[in-house]
Amino acid sequence: MGFKVGLLGLGTVGAGTVQILQNPAQRHPLLKELEIHRVGVRSLDKPRPVELPASCLTTDLESIVTDPEIAIVVEVLGGLEPARTLILSAIAHGKHIVTANKAVISRFGEEIFQAAAAAGVYVLLEAAVGGGIPVIEPLKQSLCSNRIQSVMGIINGTTNYILTRMQQEGAEFDAVLDDAQQLGYAEADPTADVDGLDAADKIAILASLAYGGKIDRDAIHCEGIRQITATEISYADKLGYSIKLLGIADRLETPDSAEDTLQIRVHPTLLPKAHPLASVNDVFNAILIEGDPVGQVMFFGRGAGAGPTASAVVSDILNIAALLKVGRDGMKQSDGKPLLDPLLACEHQDYCAIAPIETLNMRFYVRFLTQDNPGIIGRIGTSFGDQNVSLESVVQAGMRDGHAEIVVVTHEVPEGSFRQALAQIEAIPGIAQVASVLRVL
Amino acid sequence: MGFKVGLLGLGTVGAGTVQILQNPAQRHPLLKELEIHRVGVRSLDKPRPVELPASCLTTDLESIVTDPEIAIVVEVLGGLEPARTLILSAIAHGKHIVTANKAVISRFGEEIFQAAAAAGVYVLLEAAVGGGIPVIEPLKQSLCSNRIQSVMGIINGTTNYILTRMQQEGAEFDAVLDDAQQLGYAEADPTADVDGLDAADKIAILASLAYGGKIDRDAIHCEGIRQITATEISYADKLGYSIKLLGIADRLETPDSAEDTLQIRVHPTLLPKAHPLASVNDVFNAILIEGDPVGQVMFFGRGAGAGPTASAVVSDILNIAALLKVGRDGMKQSDGKPLLDPLLACEHQDYCAIAPIETLNMRFYVRFLTQDNPGIIGRIGTSFGDQNVSLESVVQAGMRDGHAEIVVVTHEVPEGSFRQALAQIEAIPGIAQVASVLRVL
Repeated sequence: MGFKVGLLGLGTVGAGTVQILQNPAQRHPLLKELEIHRVGVRSLDKPRPVELPASCLTTDLESIVTDPEIAIVVEVLGGLEPARTLILSAIAHGKHIVTANKAVISRFGEEIFQAAAAAGVYVLLEAAVGGGIPVIEPLKQSLCSNRIQSVMGIINGTTNYILTRMQQEGAEFDAVLDDAQQLGYAEADPTADVDGLDAADKIAILASLAYGGKIDRDAIHCEGIRQITATEISYADKLGYSIKLLGIADRLETPDSAEDTLQIRVHPTLLPKAHPLASVNDVFNAILIEGDPVGQVMFFGRGAGAGPTASAVVSDILNIAALLKVGRDGMKQSDGKPLLDPLLACEHQDYCAIAPIETLNMRFYVRFLTQDNPGIIGRIGTSFGDQNVSLESVVQAGMRDGHAEIVVVTHEVPEGSFRQALAQIEAIPGIAQVASVLRVL
Repeated sequence: MGFKVGLLGLGTVGAGTVQILQNPAQRHPLLKELEIHRVGVRSLDKPRPVELPASCLTTDLESIVTDPEIAIVVEVLGGLEPARTLILSAIAHGKHIVTANKAVISRFGEEIFQAAAAAGVYVLLEAAVGGGIPVIEPLKQSLCSNRIQSVMGIINGTTNYILTRMQQEGAEFDAVLDDAQQLGYAEADPTADVDGLDAADKIAILASLAYGGKIDRDAIHCEGIRQITATEISYADKLGYSIKLLGIADRLETPDSAEDTLQIRVHPTLLPKAHPLASVNDVFNAILIEGDPVGQVMFFGRGAGAGPTASAVVSDILNIAALLKVGRDGMKQSDGKPLLDPLLACEHQDYCAIAPIETLNMRFYVRFLTQDNPGIIGRIGTSFGDQNVSLESVVQAGMRDGHAEIVVVTHEVPEGSFRQALAQIEAIPGIAQVASVLRVL
C-alpha cells in the first residue's frame, strides 16, 4: 500500500520532484512507498524532461485537490493564484500539503495554517526558503529549545549572483543583469528578485518560525540592489566590506521580555569581509541563525534550481509519509478538535510587533560628490556632529567628473538622526550630490 | 500534565540542559510541559551551577531508568559504562532516550537501536555530533530524499582549535596543546581528541545515517594530529592549503550500484584555501554533505560547550515530547510489533562495506630531508614515476639543519603505489628522512 501524491505543476521543480520519485534506489526506502497519482499541468502537449503515463496528467487541477485517493498534495505552481485557492481546497479535502511557494506562504500563511489546523493536516514548506538547504525543519525542530536572537541570510540567489559578478568583474548592474537573464539566473521580469521582494517573502517566513508569531509582510522594510553601482562595490571593497543583499530579522531587547519587538528588513548591506556571510558567492544561499544557548549556526548551499528545490520537496513528502506510516495523522484532542504535532504545525496566535526602520539604530555608508574644497569635509563632519551622528571614517576617496568623492561610514546611530543630518548636508553649498546611502553591518 | 524527564549526569552539558528547562520564556511553548523529575549524580554534595530541589537528586542512577513516572531519559554521562547499561535498561523499561554520547552510539549503536525498535521507543542523538549544529536531524529528515555521496567535516573542536593556533602563531603542537589544556579546550588526557578517536566516533555515526547501514567502527582508518609540525603548516600555507583534521565518508561509485562500498577515514588533510571547510577556525565545527540532487550543503557552528550541546539535547527532548503529545508513540504493526517513525528510528539491517584505505586513490603531500645534491629531485621524480605516481609539484622548499627540504604534492594515486614509491625513495643514498606524509583533498 503506497501513499498517493498529487502534484500541482510540472515545471522545473515539479519535474525534479518526479525524477526523484521515479528513482528511489539508494535513497530512503520509504520513497518506494510513494506513488505519483495525478499531475496537474497547464497544457498536456508540452514536451517534458520526465516521462509519465498520459493517464496521470490532467489540466483539471481542482480534480487533484479533491481526489479521495490522494493523501499528499504538492504545490509547485508558484505565484499567488490559483496556488492559494488550490492549497485551501486541498486542505478542506483533508490532504496534507507540501509547497515551495514563498509568495503564498508569506502572504496567506496564517489563513493556510489555520485551515490546516482545523482540518488536522500538515503544511510543510522546506523548499520555500533556501532551496535544498535544511533551514525550516532545523528552525522548527533541531533548534526549538533556543530563544532565537537573530536570523540573517543571503536568501536570493539571483541578486547574490549579480552582486558577486559585479564585485569580481567591476561590472555595472544593468550589464550583469542582462547576462544573468540570458543564462537563466534571472527572470525576464526580474522585479521580485532585484527589488528584494522574494527575499522579503523568505525572511517573513523565517521570522515567523523563529519568533513563533504572525508577521505582517507589509511591515518589512525592503530595498533592492538596482541602485548598487560598481563604484560602491569598489569603495566598499577598499574599506574591507562586501556588499550583499541580506534578509535580517532581529529581536530588539526590551526590559519587558514578554513583549519583544522585532526588526525585519531586506536591504543591500556592507558586510565586513571576515563575516561568515561575506564569502557566500554566486547563486549560493546561506542563513545565519543566532540563538540562546546555541550561539551562531550557519546553513549553506544552493538556494534554487530543480535539484536542490526538489530535494526539499521530496524530503517534505517523505516526512508526511512517515507520519502517515505510523498513523500519526488524524489524532484528536479531548474536545474532538484535530491534534497536530506542536513542532511541525505552524499556526500562530498573535502578530509579532515590528519596529519601523526609522526607529532603529544602524550604521551607514554615504558617498558624497562635492566641490573640491578644503573646508567641505569639516562641514560634513559638523553637520553629522550636530545630530549626534558619530563617524567611524571620512575618506576623500578620489575625483569623479570634476567632483571630489567623499565616503563616510558612521557608527551605529538612530536612522532618524542620520536622515536629519543628511538633509542638512544636502543644503550645504558645495555638496553636488548624495550619490549613495547604504547600510553597514 | 507534563512530560517527566530523568537526567543521567549533571556535568557541563547536564547543567546546561537544566538551565534551559528552568528558563522556558521565549522558547517553544512545549518546553513548559516538561518537568525535571529526577537527576542522577555521582555525589550529592558537589556545588552545582544550577539549583534543583534536593529531592530531585539521587546517586542511584538505576532508579531513574526504572522510574515508572519518567517518560524520557537523558544520558549526558559520557563514556562507555555505565552509560550503555543504563541506556539499555531505560529502553527495556519503555523510556525514550536522548543522548549526547558519541562513544556509546558509535560502538553500541546497533545494540541500542535494536533494543529501542523492539521496545517501541526513540533514541535521539543530535548532541552526539557537532554540538548544537543541526546535522543528525537534517540527515534523517530534511535531506532524506537524497542519495548521499559524501559527508565530510571538521567535527572535533579541540584539534581545530590547536591547528588554528598553530597556523596563526607558527607554534608547535605541544606548546599549543599545553595552552589548550590550561584554557579548558583540551582534556588532561587529550588522546580521544588529538588522536582522532572522537572524530572517528562521529564520522561513524554520520556515515551510518547517511548511508543507511551499520558501520564497523574498527574499520575506520584514523590518524590524529600529533605529527603535525609548524613546518608542515607553513609549507602547506605557502602551497595554498590549510591543514584540518577531517572526518570523511565517501561513497565509492561501483557499476553495481546496489552494493556501493564506502570509504571512511579520519586524518589531517591539506585543504585548498578556497574550500568551504578551510576557513572554519578555532573551536568551530562544520559538516559538508553532498547529495543527489541537493548538491553541497554545509552546516556550521559551535561543536562543543555547555550551551550548544544543551541546545541539541533539549531540542531532542522536545521532539520526543511532541511525539508523546499527539500520542504518536506506542503504535503497533499488524503483527503486534512496535511501529516507529521510519525517518526518526535508526535501526539498520546490514553492515556497509568499507574499503581498506590501502585500496583508495588519494593525493599526498610529502616532505623529504635530503643531501643538498643537484640530482636528488630527479631521483625522487624517477622513483615516483616508476610506480606511476604522477606529481603535481616538486619544490625545493629550503634548507633545514644542513639538509635540503623537498616538498612533493602528488596527483590522485593509489595509496599502494605511493607507499611502494616511498619505500624505494627511502633507499636512495642522499635521502636523509621522509619527514612527513600527509593527505591532500
